[in-house]
Amino acid sequence: MSDSEHSDWQKTTIDSAQAEQHPETAQAVAKIKALRQSIDNIDSAIVSLLAERFKATSQVGVLKAGAGFAPEDTKREDYQIERLHRIAVDAGLDPEIAEMYREFVVTEAKKRHQRIADAGGDPGVLDVFA
Amino acid sequence: MSDSEHSDWQKTTIDSAQAEQHPETAQAVAKIKALRQSIDNIDSAIVSLLAERFKATSQVGVLKAGAGFAPEDTKREDYQIERLHRIAVDAGLDPEIAEMYREFVVTEAKKRHQRIADAGGDPGVLDVFA
Repeated sequence: MSDSEHSDWQKTTIDSAQAEQHPETAQAVAKIKALRQSIDNIDSAIVSLLAERFKATSQVGVLKAGAGFAPEDTKREDYQIERLHRIAVDAGLDPEIAEMYREFVVTEAKKRHQRIADAGGDPGVLDVFA
Repeated sequence: MSDSEHSDWQKTTIDSAQAEQHPETAQAVAKIKALRQSIDNIDSAIVSLLAERFKATSQVGVLKAGAGFAPEDTKREDYQIERLHRIAVDAGLDPEIAEMYREFVVTEAKKRHQRIADAGGDPGVLDVFA
């Protein structure tokens, strides 16, 4: 399909009513809709797992603050980097994505550990979503 | 436990051999280890789901490039923002974390859509990990 064949509506949003007037793209739109439902299901699962992950790291934060351990643990992070790289390659995921994911969750968990430590080991500072 | 009771080893890494010499922290270390195993299991699940998510968005990228749709779709993004916020609150996750997750995956998916479009709809540009 050449550029001249593209009308403006194609540049932004997938709209099935408009697409039906263009039979050549209607099939693509139907496939995109099906894929998006799977993407939404995957996102639900991941957000639910993130909720469990932050519940667990919040408990780690309380234990660390109580025992006097620092929020950061570089040995643990090295282990996680190597491990998630391997799991990503096995799963067919660009390992760069896995490392970005790891950085994101570890950074946020550490921020929350610090908040717990600053509150004298009281996890209540994070409890608004528990 | 006062600050003066903390020796240097407590400031960085969780080490069970050292911790056993300090019975008061040995229990905390055992609990942290158990929680870390759960965290690792959650990470395995999430990285596997991210692999499936990027396989799906890569297919969307091919379909969009073929039909002439732009990589960005703000209507779809608004829908995702509202939806993931709701799922996060229901799951007991800080919705800020869910929004950071969404931004991360959508940004990376769009970059990959652009790469597919630039390659004339050829998903082969991303196939190194398929």
